[in-house]
Amino acid sequence: MDSALKIYNSYTKSKEVFKPIIDNFVGLYVCGPTVYSESHLGHARTYTTFDLLFRYLIYTGYKVRYVRNITDVGHLENDVIGEGEDKLAKKARLEQLEPMEIAQLYTNDFHQGMEKLNNLPPSIEPLASGHIIDQIEFIQKIIEAGFAYESEGSVYFDVIKFAENPNNEYGKLSGRVVEELQGGSRDLDGQSEKRNQADFALWKKASPEHIMRWNSPWSIGFPGWHIECSAMSAKYLGEVFDIHGGGMDLQFPHHEAEIAQSKAGNHVNPANYWMHGNMLTLNGQKMGKSLGNAISLNQFFNGNHPLLEQAYSPQTIRFFILQGHYRSTLDFTNEALIASEKGLKRLMTATRNLNLLEKTATESTWEVNNWINECYSTLNDDLNSAMLIAQLFEGVSKINLMLEGKELLTPIDLQLFKDKFNAFIFDILGLKSEEDNSALQEQLIKILIDQRLEVRANKDWAKSDFIRDQLAEIGIILKDNKEGTTWQIQ
Amino acid sequence: MDSALKIYNSYTKSKEVFKPIIDNFVGLYVCGPTVYSESHLGHARTYTTFDLLFRYLIYTGYKVRYVRNITDVGHLENDVIGEGEDKLAKKARLEQLEPMEIAQLYTNDFHQGMEKLNNLPPSIEPLASGHIIDQIEFIQKIIEAGFAYESEGSVYFDVIKFAENPNNEYGKLSGRVVEELQGGSRDLDGQSEKRNQADFALWKKASPEHIMRWNSPWSIGFPGWHIECSAMSAKYLGEVFDIHGGGMDLQFPHHEAEIAQSKAGNHVNPANYWMHGNMLTLNGQKMGKSLGNAISLNQFFNGNHPLLEQAYSPQTIRFFILQGHYRSTLDFTNEALIASEKGLKRLMTATRNLNLLEKTATESTWEVNNWINECYSTLNDDLNSAMLIAQLFEGVSKINLMLEGKELLTPIDLQLFKDKFNAFIFDILGLKSEEDNSALQEQLIKILIDQRLEVRANKDWAKSDFIRDQLAEIGIILKDNKEGTTWQIQ
Repeated sequence: MDSALKIYNSYTKSKEVFKPIIDNFVGLYVCGPTVYSESHLGHARTYTTFDLLFRYLIYTGYKVRYVRNITDVGHLENDVIGEGEDKLAKKARLEQLEPMEIAQLYTNDFHQGMEKLNNLPPSIEPLASGHIIDQIEFIQKIIEAGFAYESEGSVYFDVIKFAENPNNEYGKLSGRVVEELQGGSRDLDGQSEKRNQADFALWKKASPEHIMRWNSPWSIGFPGWHIECSAMSAKYLGEVFDIHGGGMDLQFPHHEAEIAQSKAGNHVNPANYWMHGNMLTLNGQKMGKSLGNAISLNQFFNGNHPLLEQAYSPQTIRFFILQGHYRSTLDFTNEALIASEKGLKRLMTATRNLNLLEKTATESTWEVNNWINECYSTLNDDLNSAMLIAQLFEGVSKINLMLEGKELLTPIDLQLFKDKFNAFIFDILGLKSEEDNSALQEQLIKILIDQRLEVRANKDWAKSDFIRDQLAEIGIILKDNKEGTTWQIQ
Repeated sequence: MDSALKIYNSYTKSKEVFKPIIDNFVGLYVCGPTVYSESHLGHARTYTTFDLLFRYLIYTGYKVRYVRNITDVGHLENDVIGEGEDKLAKKARLEQLEPMEIAQLYTNDFHQGMEKLNNLPPSIEPLASGHIIDQIEFIQKIIEAGFAYESEGSVYFDVIKFAENPNNEYGKLSGRVVEELQGGSRDLDGQSEKRNQADFALWKKASPEHIMRWNSPWSIGFPGWHIECSAMSAKYLGEVFDIHGGGMDLQFPHHEAEIAQSKAGNHVNPANYWMHGNMLTLNGQKMGKSLGNAISLNQFFNGNHPLLEQAYSPQTIRFFILQGHYRSTLDFTNEALIASEKGLKRLMTATRNLNLLEKTATESTWEVNNWINECYSTLNDDLNSAMLIAQLFEGVSKINLMLEGKELLTPIDLQLFKDKFNAFIFDILGLKSEEDNSALQEQLIKILIDQRLEVRANKDWAKSDFIRDQLAEIGIILKDNKEGTTWQIQ
């Protein structure tokens, strides 16, 4: 068994043994959703990945403070190429709604999606709009350090000046080179205010129609997108914390900008480990609204989209995501999802059957501890949930052999196996049974009511009473009316 | 049928026809919870009351913007008598946790409780900590108007000066007289800074150990409790909006202070209708932590408290609350809750039986429209849910008579009755079935597996196959193993 957790650090591009700053305590920051539209599969993948990390760290004894923000304002679209449009305010104007009403709607949608996927809520879920003062103060520090400048009421980060100093390692995370960011000939909103095209906004002066706005030392305006995560992670986890996570698409510009902001304002690299979940494709294609293949989580759950052959339950989606390693790309197809659905059922059936197993022996016929150690090793190897699931299916085979009496364990080994098999599935992978179903319950009761009608037709009153009594014993009371038999739960 | 909704307005002390400021649109603000401890029965009552209002307004065609805040900072305890302690920061210091981590924990607990009770989420749920700038700006307006003063870095509302002008009607809502608020001889924290004992804090300078703090024009500190609701209601609903609600205990000082702040800063009475839910008692006694009878919602749901004879499901609690009119006091006793549990089951059984009813006649034997009008009249009379539930039980009697063929409806009347009976129970009262239960499902399957084992023992293979096939038809696959029969959902 490899007992040390190793994490692939995107900053150093290598797998490293995880060592927290303070023993037994982990500070984890993950960039949360922008709440201006329905949650989609990308959210499911990223937050399920970090939920697995959160759960595994807790299971192995760490006290984890997991901070995941909600971007409800100031998400600048394509800031680097200079469009500078606040997505949320745009949607609000289109729908003639208060922006915070839209943000609340989609925050609720996001929370519901996360709950269905069985992702645990983070320890703190700060709102960008709720931390304007902290962002202003962070911007002031960067200005004082000489790495930001005011221009026409907006404030920009001076990327060129920052990148000049090789110790700042600008571009190390994303591999971008400053020269690439320059050039081009666009002159879009805000571009003329910047000293260099590579600079990004820390504060934007609000145009008259921009409805989300706050007072600041520079103008009535709103913060740039990147500054919120720097301000909020430092506030809740300290200026340097353990792990920063997010989707691969955030490496640039967002995370590169976060590192630059923290180095400029606080003189530190904010996180010791940077983790990035890889991208998703759908039938081999990149997903996106403009590509017509953006499917929301709710559409996956209800099957209501032309590209979906059926509905897929939240746990099927979760299981499918966990069947891939988080650093691999993941291709969603109906075939693959249907296969995951079947696999998940096999696993859930096995957990139920395992609970039925009682027969034991004085000597075990197979090595439970080897199996357990192998489970831990898969996760310790950069959270390889794909390998863990393969290992769990080895466990399913053992359960089936034990049901047939072909393998046996000692009472202690059997208990250990039950505990760990359940722990890996429910506590660590965070899967949950979805078999509970009121329609099914009604159908089962109907089968028994029909049976009873049949025996009554044959005047077998003893059998009729037996069925009624059996149901009464589990709290279901039958009542014979002129119009048929009805039932009630006691 | 009385078709106009009438609301008891605590400000005018009279029942008034409800007329919104803008046709078909309602702005509703309700004071939300302070998230420094578990949600309790008081929360359940207040927010179920306003959920009923929200649902009824939506059902009758209004577009409602429902704002309910989260007080995550600056809840000043006993500010009037001058203790000025921030509850949340106190708890944080005790538990050695980040205050926002505690606030998040109890916000999640509150949301879970509300979801179990089936209270709809409000349209916007703003955090006090997220609106510091808005509160500072509101305080500045009050200072400019001459009704607040700075003292040692804190800012106080000048109650005496405000109350001098009889047009301001200070005390009208709560019935308090300024003279009562003066006098006394305590000299607790902050009292020496105030001009008058009746004054209340708008901004408090933070003591060195106070960990929740923000920059302001006056000091590094935190806002007083009352200002958050004035600032956030004006921001999201406008300076004057339709309905302001809360528990009776908030009339003074909180709502009286809100009215004073809005009149001083914005020159308006912020809400046209003030609604207050009455108090709860437990076995005839006031509830409170110091009295040892404060029971959390979770304790009600799991029955884990010495004063509870059993667990009570969320919908039992909801139903019990709705069985009282919101302006009456409500006494929780085990006897009364058990009676509600039974009543709710009768109601839920009736909804299921109603769906079974198919037999109709060419002429109805009773007047469905009278019954429907009477339902509306109960709610239009200041949301009298107690009377509505009595009326629904009249409907249950009709359902039972129809099951026996003793009453009959035309197809149109039957459909109308089905629609409205369900609408009042599920859409408006917001009750939901809790009968769904995976344990019950497993027990039902076990009854059928045992039946099959019995017929197999009698070598009745046809009957054995019939049971297996019936289960297969509803998606339950049996498998016979050496160690017994297991099952799987297809």
